[in-house]
Amino acid sequence: MSLILNRRDLDFLLYDFLESDHLHHYPRFAGQGRETYDQIIDLAFTLAEAQFQPHAALVDVDEPRFDGERVSMPAEVKQALDAYVEAGFMGAGFDEELGGLQLPCTLVQAIAALFYAANVSTATYPLLTIGAANLLAAYGDETQRRLYLEPLVAGRYFGTMCLSEPHAGSSLADIRTKAVPQADGSYRLFGSKMWISGGEHELSENIVHLVLAKIEGAPPGVKGISLFAVPRLLVAGDGSLGARNDVRLAGLNHKMGWRGIVNTVLNFGEDEGAIGSLVGEPHRGLAYMFHMMNEARIACGVAAVALSYTGYLHSLDYAKTRRQGRLPGEKDPTTPMVPLTEHADVKRMLLQQKAYAEGGLALGLYSASLVDLQDQGTAEESLKARRLLDILTPIVKTWPAVYGLKANEIAIQVLGGAGYTRDYPLERFYRENRLNAIHEGTTGIQAGDLLGRKVRQEEGAAFDALCDAISADLDPLTKGLSVETEDLAAALGICRQVTHDLVAAAAQVGEVRYLANATLYLDAIGHIVVAWLWLRQAQIASRLLAEGPGEEETAFLQGKLAACRYFFRYELPAARTTLALVAQIDDTCASLDPAVL
Amino acid sequence: MSLILNRRDLDFLLYDFLESDHLHHYPRFAGQGRETYDQIIDLAFTLAEAQFQPHAALVDVDEPRFDGERVSMPAEVKQALDAYVEAGFMGAGFDEELGGLQLPCTLVQAIAALFYAANVSTATYPLLTIGAANLLAAYGDETQRRLYLEPLVAGRYFGTMCLSEPHAGSSLADIRTKAVPQADGSYRLFGSKMWISGGEHELSENIVHLVLAKIEGAPPGVKGISLFAVPRLLVAGDGSLGARNDVRLAGLNHKMGWRGIVNTVLNFGEDEGAIGSLVGEPHRGLAYMFHMMNEARIACGVAAVALSYTGYLHSLDYAKTRRQGRLPGEKDPTTPMVPLTEHADVKRMLLQQKAYAEGGLALGLYSASLVDLQDQGTAEESLKARRLLDILTPIVKTWPAVYGLKANEIAIQVLGGAGYTRDYPLERFYRENRLNAIHEGTTGIQAGDLLGRKVRQEEGAAFDALCDAISADLDPLTKGLSVETEDLAAALGICRQVTHDLVAAAAQVGEVRYLANATLYLDAIGHIVVAWLWLRQAQIASRLLAEGPGEEETAFLQGKLAACRYFFRYELPAARTTLALVAQIDDTCASLDPAVL
Repeated sequence: MSLILNRRDLDFLLYDFLESDHLHHYPRFAGQGRETYDQIIDLAFTLAEAQFQPHAALVDVDEPRFDGERVSMPAEVKQALDAYVEAGFMGAGFDEELGGLQLPCTLVQAIAALFYAANVSTATYPLLTIGAANLLAAYGDETQRRLYLEPLVAGRYFGTMCLSEPHAGSSLADIRTKAVPQADGSYRLFGSKMWISGGEHELSENIVHLVLAKIEGAPPGVKGISLFAVPRLLVAGDGSLGARNDVRLAGLNHKMGWRGIVNTVLNFGEDEGAIGSLVGEPHRGLAYMFHMMNEARIACGVAAVALSYTGYLHSLDYAKTRRQGRLPGEKDPTTPMVPLTEHADVKRMLLQQKAYAEGGLALGLYSASLVDLQDQGTAEESLKARRLLDILTPIVKTWPAVYGLKANEIAIQVLGGAGYTRDYPLERFYRENRLNAIHEGTTGIQAGDLLGRKVRQEEGAAFDALCDAISADLDPLTKGLSVETEDLAAALGICRQVTHDLVAAAAQVGEVRYLANATLYLDAIGHIVVAWLWLRQAQIASRLLAEGPGEEETAFLQGKLAACRYFFRYELPAARTTLALVAQIDDTCASLDPAVL
Repeated sequence: MSLILNRRDLDFLLYDFLESDHLHHYPRFAGQGRETYDQIIDLAFTLAEAQFQPHAALVDVDEPRFDGERVSMPAEVKQALDAYVEAGFMGAGFDEELGGLQLPCTLVQAIAALFYAANVSTATYPLLTIGAANLLAAYGDETQRRLYLEPLVAGRYFGTMCLSEPHAGSSLADIRTKAVPQADGSYRLFGSKMWISGGEHELSENIVHLVLAKIEGAPPGVKGISLFAVPRLLVAGDGSLGARNDVRLAGLNHKMGWRGIVNTVLNFGEDEGAIGSLVGEPHRGLAYMFHMMNEARIACGVAAVALSYTGYLHSLDYAKTRRQGRLPGEKDPTTPMVPLTEHADVKRMLLQQKAYAEGGLALGLYSASLVDLQDQGTAEESLKARRLLDILTPIVKTWPAVYGLKANEIAIQVLGGAGYTRDYPLERFYRENRLNAIHEGTTGIQAGDLLGRKVRQEEGAAFDALCDAISADLDPLTKGLSVETEDLAAALGICRQVTHDLVAAAAQVGEVRYLANATLYLDAIGHIVVAWLWLRQAQIASRLLAEGPGEEETAFLQGKLAACRYFFRYELPAARTTLALVAQIDDTCASLDPAVL
C-alpha cells in the first residue's frame, strides 16, 4: 500500500462524499468524468512516488545553497519538476485556451495533496507558481497574460508571492516597498521582501514575482497597497528573455523544516529600481490578494493534511509489524510479543491520527468543492458556496495545521525512539508541518479574520450558511449514528448561541476584548466542522455497508465508522469546553499588564 | 535578565514555596542554609551561561562523529564538563565522605534545571553519570564503590544506563543480553544495547555502563533480570586503568534533536565477552532500577521543564521588543506599531507558556522535595512522602514533557516566521523537548504505571495521599482565590469519584479495558496536580503582596496571580472534560479491530 495517501479514501471523498464525478454537468467540466479523474490521479500517484518521494529526505539535509551568483540544489528537484510540468500538472486547473486541463479545484487540490505528501518542499515550487498564475489569470492585462501567465501555466516560468518585509510580517499595512511610476507606464520598485519561497533558483527559465508595494504618494495603510508583476529576467514584447532585472538575493532563510524550498530575502531596486508592471488598478493589491486567498489557504491546509496523512500511514505501517510487549493481564513472559497495533494506547494514537488526517482531507476537499460551486454554480449556489468558503477559509487554513501537527507528533510516539531518529521520515514531517500555522497568515491572523470579519459580515450570513449546512445533515433517524447526530446538534446549538452572544456583546466590551479569545473560538468551531464532516462520512459508510460489500471494502468502511466514533467521543467534547470559556468573554489575557510576565 | 531561568522564580519556589532553607533541620543537611544554596545557584547560573549555553547551538549541528576508533565532538563540550566537575556539581547530591556536597535533592534538581535550560545535550552527560552513581551508591558493594562510584562522583568517570535493546524498547521483560558467571565471581556479558546515551566518548577517563542482563538459566521475564557494572576500560584492584573491555560501539543514532549527546548502539561481548560485576543480588536488577527511577524520572521532567522555561523567556524577550501591527479598533495606519506583548493573543501565548513552565518547575521541585522528605523525614513523613512520590512520578515525568513541548510549540508561534528559523533557538528547544515523552519510559508506559500500579497499590494509599495533600490546601477563605479553590475542590472530587469507580470496575471490565484510556487519565490528573501547585503559588503570592513589596517584586507576584488565574480558567476545565470520558470506560480504542485502520 502507498504510504503517501490511501487511494480508497481519496476515491471515497471525491466520489462517495463530494460526488465530483458529477461535476461534468457544469459546462466548464463538460466531457470530464470519473474516468478522466482516475487517470489523472493514477498519474499523480505514480509521479509523486517515483519522482518526488525519493528525494524528500535528501533535500532536507542538502539544502539550497547560494554561492553569491546562483542558488544550487540537488538535481533531483529539477528532474521531478520537469516531469511534473511535462505531465501537465502545472496547468491542471487553468483554462484549456491557456494550455491548461481545466480541471475542477477539487481535483487540483486532491492532486496537490499527493505531491505534498510525497515531498512537501519540491511540491511547493509548482504550488506557488499556480498561486501567482491564478492572480494574473484574474487580474492581469493582455500583455501580462501573454508574457507571464502563459509561460507560468506551461511551467516554463515559476512564480512567487512577495508580501512580507523584514519589519512587517503579519502587518501588511506597514510594508514600505515603493513603486515609482515611469514615463512608459511601467514602475520601478525599491524595497526588501522577506520569507519569499522560490525567490531565486535555476529550476525554470524565469521567475515572476508578484509583489505588494506602495506607489509613491499612495494613501497610508492597506488602502495604498498595489500589486506588481516583477520578472527576474526582463521579458521583451515578443517573449524573449533579456537582462536580469534589479532583483537581488540578499540571503537565504534557514528553517527547521520544509528545507528543500529555497526561502529568500529579496532586495528590489538596489540600483536603478526593479522594473515591474502594475496588475489591475492602483491601490487594490490587497483586495486582489484577499480574493485569491481562499484558494491559497485551502492549499496551505491541504499541505498540512498531506503531512499528517503520510505520517499516519507510516506509523500504521510500523505498528503493524513491530512487536513489543504483551497485553495487560498476560503474565506469561514466554508468550510471543504482540504487534503494536494490539495495544489499546497505540490503537488510540492511530485512530486519533486517522481522525485528524482523513477528517482534514475531507475538510480540504470539501472546501475546494465550494470553489467549484462558487465559480460554476447558479447564482444561488454560488452565493451560498461563497459564504461557506468565506467562513471556512480560516478554518481550513488552521485546523489541519494544528491537528495535523498533533498527528505528526503522535506518529513519532507510535514508533518510540525510532520515530525520534532521522532513520524514519516522521520527525521530518513533524518539523515540516510546524510551518503551516505560521505562513499564509498565522493562526492568530486567521482567528481575527474569522471572528473579527467573517462571523459578522453580511449580518452573519456566512456563519448562518455554515450552521444551515450542518443542520441539513442532522438526520436524527440515521441508523447507528443517533448519538453522534444528537451530540453534533447540541454542539452546534451552543456554538450558535455563544457566537450570537459574543457578537451582541462586542459593542459593549470593545474590539480588544471581543477578539481576545478568537483563537480558542476558531479551534472550537473547527472541531465542530470536522465532527460534521465525520458524521457525513459515517452516514455514507453506513449506507455503503448496508449494500454488503466485500471484506476489504467492509474494513475500510468500518474504519470510517470507528474514526467517526472516536472523533465524537474523544474530540468533540473539548469544543464544548472551549466554547464555555469563550462565552465568558474572559479578559485574563486581554487585560493583562505585560510587565508582570 | 537571564534567558535560561528566572532567578526570582527559582528563589520563590525554593524558599517561599518549598522552604528549602529549613532543610538544615535534618542532620544530613546540618550547616547548610539559604546562603549556601544561593552561592551554589549563583555559581551554577554563571557556569551554565558562560560554559554551557554558548555551544548549545554548535553541538546541534556539529554532532558527535565516529571514525571507527573514536567518537569526536566539539572541544567546548569537554571544556564545559571539566568546569562543571571542577566546580563540584557532579557530586552535588552525594555524601561528603564520597567527596560530594551532600546537597538536598531539591537543590540538585534546581541546579540541573539551569544546566538543562542552558544546553540540554551537554548537561545530559553528568545527569546520566549521577543516575549511574546513585544506583551504585544504593546497591554497589565495597569494591564497586571504590573502583566505580568514587571516580563517578569525582567526575573522572562518566556513567550510562543500558536498558533497551534493538528488539526490546519498552518491553524490558524481553531483553536478551546474557551474563555468564565466571570462576572468579565476575560475569561475561553478551548482547546488544540500544539508545545508550553517552555510550562512547573521550570526555572522561573511563565509562561505567550499568547494564541490565539475564544470568544464564534465569527465570523468564522481568524476574530474571540482573544489574551489572561494566566498565569501558578494565579497572585493576588499585584503581589503575587496563585494557579495553569487550564493549564495542556498533553505531550512532541520529536524532531530531538533543543531538549533542552521543547516542549509541553498544555491542557487549563480540569476542570473549564483556567483563562485568553483579550489582546487588541476582534477578533483582529491575527492582533496583525501579527504586532509582523516581529520581531519574523527576530529572527527565525537570529537563522538559527547563526547555519550556528557556523557550518562554526567549519568546517573551522577543515579544517585548518586536513591534507588529496595531490593536483591534485602531484604524489609523500612521500610528506606530505596538510591541507584540500588547496583543491579547500574544499575551495568551505568553501566559500559557508561563503557566506551563513555572507550573512544571513547581511540580519538578516539589517532587524533588519529596525525595528529601522520604530520605530524611520521620517514619511518618517518609511514608507519606514515598506514597506521594510514587503517585507523582509518572506525572512529573509526563506532564512537563507534554505541556513543555506545547510551550515550545507556542514559543515558536510568538516569533512567527523567525521562530521557525535556525536563527533563534526556539526551534531547537522544540526538537529537543520532543524526546521527553519517549525516553525514560514513554507516556503510555507512565500511564500504565499510574493507573495499573500506583493508583491501586496499598489499597489506594498513594492516591489518597495525593488527594489529602491537595485537600489540605483548599482553604475556601483564601482572599481573592475562592473561585479557584472551589474549582479545584470540584475537579478533585470528580477525580476521586472517577478513580474509585474505575478501580471498582476493573475486575468486571478486565485489565485491557480498564487501562485503555490510562493516558487520558494521566493527562487529567496531571492538570489537577499542576492546578493545585498554581493555587499554592497564588496563595503565597497573595500573602507576600499584602506585605506591600516594591514595584519589581509586586510585578513578579502579580504575574503569579495572573498565571494561576489563566491556568484555572483556560486549562483546568479540560481535565474535567477528559475525566468525563475516562469515567465512561469507553472501549472505542480497546475493542478496535486494527484491520480497519
